[in-house]
Amino acid sequence: MIYERKSMTKIEPRTLKGFRDFGPEKQMARQAWFGKIQNVFESFGFLPMATPVLEYKEILMGKYGEDEKLVYSFKDNGDRDVAMRYDLTVPLARYIAENQGRLVYPFKRYQIAPVWRADNPQKGRFREFYQCDIDVVGSTAALSDAEVIACSAKALEAVGLSDYKIRLNDRRNFEVFGESASDIIRSIDKFDKIGLDGVVSELESKGVSADKIATAKQIMEGSASLQYAEQLEKLRADIIKLGISEVNIVIDPSIARGLDYYTSTVFEIVIPSMPEFGSVCSGGRYDSLVDQYSEQSVPAVGGSIGVDRLFDALAEKGEANTESVVKALIINFDEALQDEYTALATKLRAQGIAVELYYEPVKLDKQFKYAESKQIPYAIVMGTDEQAKGVVKLKNMQTREQVECSEEELIKTLS
Amino acid sequence: MIYERKSMTKIEPRTLKGFRDFGPEKQMARQAWFGKIQNVFESFGFLPMATPVLEYKEILMGKYGEDEKLVYSFKDNGDRDVAMRYDLTVPLARYIAENQGRLVYPFKRYQIAPVWRADNPQKGRFREFYQCDIDVVGSTAALSDAEVIACSAKALEAVGLSDYKIRLNDRRNFEVFGESASDIIRSIDKFDKIGLDGVVSELESKGVSADKIATAKQIMEGSASLQYAEQLEKLRADIIKLGISEVNIVIDPSIARGLDYYTSTVFEIVIPSMPEFGSVCSGGRYDSLVDQYSEQSVPAVGGSIGVDRLFDALAEKGEANTESVVKALIINFDEALQDEYTALATKLRAQGIAVELYYEPVKLDKQFKYAESKQIPYAIVMGTDEQAKGVVKLKNMQTREQVECSEEELIKTLS
Repeated sequence: MIYERKSMTKIEPRTLKGFRDFGPEKQMARQAWFGKIQNVFESFGFLPMATPVLEYKEILMGKYGEDEKLVYSFKDNGDRDVAMRYDLTVPLARYIAENQGRLVYPFKRYQIAPVWRADNPQKGRFREFYQCDIDVVGSTAALSDAEVIACSAKALEAVGLSDYKIRLNDRRNFEVFGESASDIIRSIDKFDKIGLDGVVSELESKGVSADKIATAKQIMEGSASLQYAEQLEKLRADIIKLGISEVNIVIDPSIARGLDYYTSTVFEIVIPSMPEFGSVCSGGRYDSLVDQYSEQSVPAVGGSIGVDRLFDALAEKGEANTESVVKALIINFDEALQDEYTALATKLRAQGIAVELYYEPVKLDKQFKYAESKQIPYAIVMGTDEQAKGVVKLKNMQTREQVECSEEELIKTLS
Repeated sequence: MIYERKSMTKIEPRTLKGFRDFGPEKQMARQAWFGKIQNVFESFGFLPMATPVLEYKEILMGKYGEDEKLVYSFKDNGDRDVAMRYDLTVPLARYIAENQGRLVYPFKRYQIAPVWRADNPQKGRFREFYQCDIDVVGSTAALSDAEVIACSAKALEAVGLSDYKIRLNDRRNFEVFGESASDIIRSIDKFDKIGLDGVVSELESKGVSADKIATAKQIMEGSASLQYAEQLEKLRADIIKLGISEVNIVIDPSIARGLDYYTSTVFEIVIPSMPEFGSVCSGGRYDSLVDQYSEQSVPAVGGSIGVDRLFDALAEKGEANTESVVKALIINFDEALQDEYTALATKLRAQGIAVELYYEPVKLDKQFKYAESKQIPYAIVMGTDEQAKGVVKLKNMQTREQVECSEEELIKTLS
């Protein structure tokens, strides 16, 4: 044998903590979900775009606040400081700055792709996970904020979610905090996790003044008077006009979002019945992010579905899709008929029918078990008798019924 | 404003050498191609699977011969040695070993995903590129080799390639070289690039004996008598039965493939009219790879389409798909009718029709130009007159024809 093992020591087959394999059944369901989300994104006129997994590290730095330490970064073979994509928004801003003059605005794109965060793995949190993002770049129209949010919500509906809540806020409501706003926002962002008292004691430990803490409390309790209440009401009305039920939308002054780059509208979508999954979608307006790479300012608004958290929530609700794409297994019944089996498989595939061909003439029982374990709905059996008559036996794997049929009838049944 | 820049120094917006962005037009075409390839894979009964981008470094080492230095590896935040996926085969072998007892064999999976190689960027070669892989694990049937190759070729046909050539060989034909086989294989693998003389002088510099060099020359010239000629003829016949034209398949004893892990069948697919793109697909049987992680041996055969190279070749042939998914742009004609426009957009989207809504009531000319630049086929214009009559004007952006139609007619035309 040509191939020689470098060493007889076995390497333990394992995946890194926070990383996952998706076997065929799970991946089929995931792909179906991605497809549905993609359809909704395209129905709103968002088109796909792709950026690399690796970026120059400097592109990513200074955007994520205290979470910056979670960026996977390293020196590549050419001694360049590189980093793995932490979200899909910062690479988009880099792309916009790099291609500014060549683009048509409003530039509407979606991206469905994995990102990496060296986070502490816990329920619903992974180090590698997918995001489904939409962004409108180059428009300050209030309608673009509404479309991003409505489209995100429609995508959630498309994968079977109905009991969600969109929470809206405007970050400019935090301008009352002056220079310490960024710090206070990061603490208020933890309100859901650590509660009012938790936020207050964090603010105290940060040395925030008593009157600012009092204002923060009012905001979290919903008793503060908001400067941008009217804009938020208009935004809510626009989202409703774009097809989202009003019961699904609340204005919530405590929504802050941790990321540094949001400038006005911020939102998140949660599943009230499953608070353990946190927000399954979030986003906002970020009118100054592109400025970091460019002399020209480009406004933008976007949303991001944290699809892995969502899929886990859906799987827990039993919404997984397990229908087989393979319509039939051609049973390898008689060694002498190998060529007939391959010819039949080729004919059916040419008709757009997905079929599997069992490779070896092993015991029938084993072959039927294979079809069952893969949830293939039909088995096709052809022996010399059937071949002579120009027919096949078609067995419904669910009902166990078996019928004799011509090739034409076979194609009709499987199509 | 809440958002404050960390620094006024602009960061140059740029991508790493060997990495690419794909803007909407290119990415639409890519997704369409991926979809076609996926359909073919599924028609042969391959199901999707996904593995992480990062693996423990030790999982990847010792598999790629001298190319091992091209693996992107680094220490993560937890001081673990990790590496980015170099191909889709080694992670599959790791997955098989890890889940051996839980899987149903033959295990047939496909994976369409990017891999990373710190290669020297050149025409058609990138540091980040997609592979489309299919593998049959757990079968030694000759038919599984044939299916992998036929299915790969069918996938190439599905994206518009017809003038390709499948070159088949059996690595066991190199067993005549005894212990120096691995070294000699790696040199013969460069035959296409550096020619007969190049391989010979490389073998000489490696200190290979004169009689072995003579045999290598015979193999490359096609004059060697092959030990596994019969098996290769049978493989070729099976591939033809699975729907591939015989003119597309040659047995070529000089095909070696550089990777260490192949054990018998090896193949590659080239486009003779575009030799500069090298092989667009390759693979083979690797019956001992899983052994490295497991006490139990699991045979396997697979193929991999180097889809980026293929897409570049297709793009050069002008096969790019540029049809718009967005069917119409709703013109923002009258500020007073905003609510009518959003309502119409929502209605059409609910019918599964992708439409864009222009966000602001700017000059008509600008809005029509936007539709043109995005190749949107129709524009919908509704002013107060039309609204009163319950109609819209539908403008064909290609012919410039404009017709008045009811909502019902509109849905019919755009569906």
